[in-house]
Amino acid sequence: MQTKYDVTGIGNAIVDVLAHADDGFLESEGLTKGAMTLIGADESLNLYDKISQAIECSGGSAANTIAGLASLGGAGAFIGKVHDDQLGAVFRHDIRALGVAFESAPATDGPPTATSMILVTPDAERTMMTFLGACVDLGPGDVDEDLIKASKITYLEGYLWDPPGAKEAFVKAADAAHQAGRKVSLSLSDPFCVDRHRDEFRDLAEHHVDILFANEEEIMSLYQTDDFDVALSHVRGHCEIAALTRSEKGSVIVSGDEVHEINAEPVAQLVDTTGAGDAYAAGFLHGVTTDRDLRVSGRMGGICAAEVISHLGARPDVSLKNLVEEKLG
Amino acid sequence: MQTKYDVTGIGNAIVDVLAHADDGFLESEGLTKGAMTLIGADESLNLYDKISQAIECSGGSAANTIAGLASLGGAGAFIGKVHDDQLGAVFRHDIRALGVAFESAPATDGPPTATSMILVTPDAERTMMTFLGACVDLGPGDVDEDLIKASKITYLEGYLWDPPGAKEAFVKAADAAHQAGRKVSLSLSDPFCVDRHRDEFRDLAEHHVDILFANEEEIMSLYQTDDFDVALSHVRGHCEIAALTRSEKGSVIVSGDEVHEINAEPVAQLVDTTGAGDAYAAGFLHGVTTDRDLRVSGRMGGICAAEVISHLGARPDVSLKNLVEEKLG
Repeated sequence: MQTKYDVTGIGNAIVDVLAHADDGFLESEGLTKGAMTLIGADESLNLYDKISQAIECSGGSAANTIAGLASLGGAGAFIGKVHDDQLGAVFRHDIRALGVAFESAPATDGPPTATSMILVTPDAERTMMTFLGACVDLGPGDVDEDLIKASKITYLEGYLWDPPGAKEAFVKAADAAHQAGRKVSLSLSDPFCVDRHRDEFRDLAEHHVDILFANEEEIMSLYQTDDFDVALSHVRGHCEIAALTRSEKGSVIVSGDEVHEINAEPVAQLVDTTGAGDAYAAGFLHGVTTDRDLRVSGRMGGICAAEVISHLGARPDVSLKNLVEEKLG
Repeated sequence: MQTKYDVTGIGNAIVDVLAHADDGFLESEGLTKGAMTLIGADESLNLYDKISQAIECSGGSAANTIAGLASLGGAGAFIGKVHDDQLGAVFRHDIRALGVAFESAPATDGPPTATSMILVTPDAERTMMTFLGACVDLGPGDVDEDLIKASKITYLEGYLWDPPGAKEAFVKAADAAHQAGRKVSLSLSDPFCVDRHRDEFRDLAEHHVDILFANEEEIMSLYQTDDFDVALSHVRGHCEIAALTRSEKGSVIVSGDEVHEINAEPVAQLVDTTGAGDAYAAGFLHGVTTDRDLRVSGRMGGICAAEVISHLGARPDVSLKNLVEEKLG
């Protein structure tokens, strides 16, 4: 069967609320710097009252990746749950504006569209407090199997393990993809998320995931080791491809006997690391789905990540297609 | 009576939806480049479907000025009407986060919180299409006379002449301010806005406004002349102080026999002119309310405007207090 989409993402549909904060504020509020922490509705309102003026922009890990893929010229689709409210309309507008197919029905009752308060400290590190809102209503009924079958790769974010019904949606999508001979890809999302769901994530990596994305901390947490090379040797036996990001040290791509070390792209001005991993996945998946080799795909990931961390917000500010063409020459 | 506030602003309470666009898009949609055009709810939804991915941030002309004043360390209050919805909460959060008193009750029925779609072209010019939403419900009942009496200056935006009831609110506020021996300030907002309300604006300038802000186009439209010096001589006889901005040519301040020409501040990177005039007014009013002379006040206006046009969005990205202290030495 012909594929209509390069990548379909399934993830939490979130509007980011980005604000500057200093380390003292994180400390006084007891926030875990660099992590994604889940918070409830009341906690979210309380914290919002305390943070500085903010900007709102569409986010969500897998959604950012699909947005990046579309900016690269890839054909993307997204499955995720917003509420039928103003922020839900913002999320829907932004992802569709990039040409992404987004047909998930919004919830008309239950909690509002999810928001993530992202506090960016002067060192450009981001600390996220996420209220999952309507995302908790995502379930297997939201997974359109025809869409999955029509996609070369189904891409899933580890954060989906947090809301209760999304896991079932994930499994349904992964099964549908594999039955149609398609690939399944997973991002581990966050070391604390790996902590919460380690056994299931390990099972996924061993049995269900073809292309795994993780950063250094996440992959070491998955295999409970403090030695990156040990983690790397584990994942090599489990996934067809593992793309492991290491911030300023670049990335390592492992596939069977192949190991490629890719240098990080230079960044003119490091402003906000939000979305770095999501953008890397976008570039890498676009490379893989356009038949580039792993090294070039990794480089494309690095170029996209470098763009996204050079400004506030997780989605690209420029056409990634033009940027990658220029950089790859 | 002791004043509690330096400046109370009255204006349209708007959330900006900022997106990049090229000139071809403006042409094909028949949009008037550089202007603020009022649009209805349906037109707003239609246009939103066509624009690229956006970011949301609080805006509104007078609200931006009061936000800037607060960032300078001034004591500000704001009167304006949002709806009790998600974007209304965004507006309320952002202005309060800066320490501004904002106690206007949100509307619980009627249209949603106002939005302005602001399309920024590659030349950094902004083109605004505003859906006034809940702003049409602002009326004299929203003007707290005690607040006006407790403010050194009441600052009003010309855009208030567009929604029907706001004009009455404006007149009530101006009368209350003058009865208490306070000053009234007006920004002409937009040359098309001046076209719509020229006779009333001229009457205001002659009889009700102590400190007038206008750019070159607006003041020439007010006096229907294409000679800036002619406009200047007219306004000199009408207002105690007129601060006239001229983009890269800086500003001219006229007060009785005094005329001060102030050079524009250098701008490292011109990104988005949205809010330039609002920021100028913030700096100038902070100067005046902290007893700086007109020349220094004008320079402060220029410093604030230069900051705001160096990034996307109408509100300052940094502490204007620190910036002005650094620049004035």
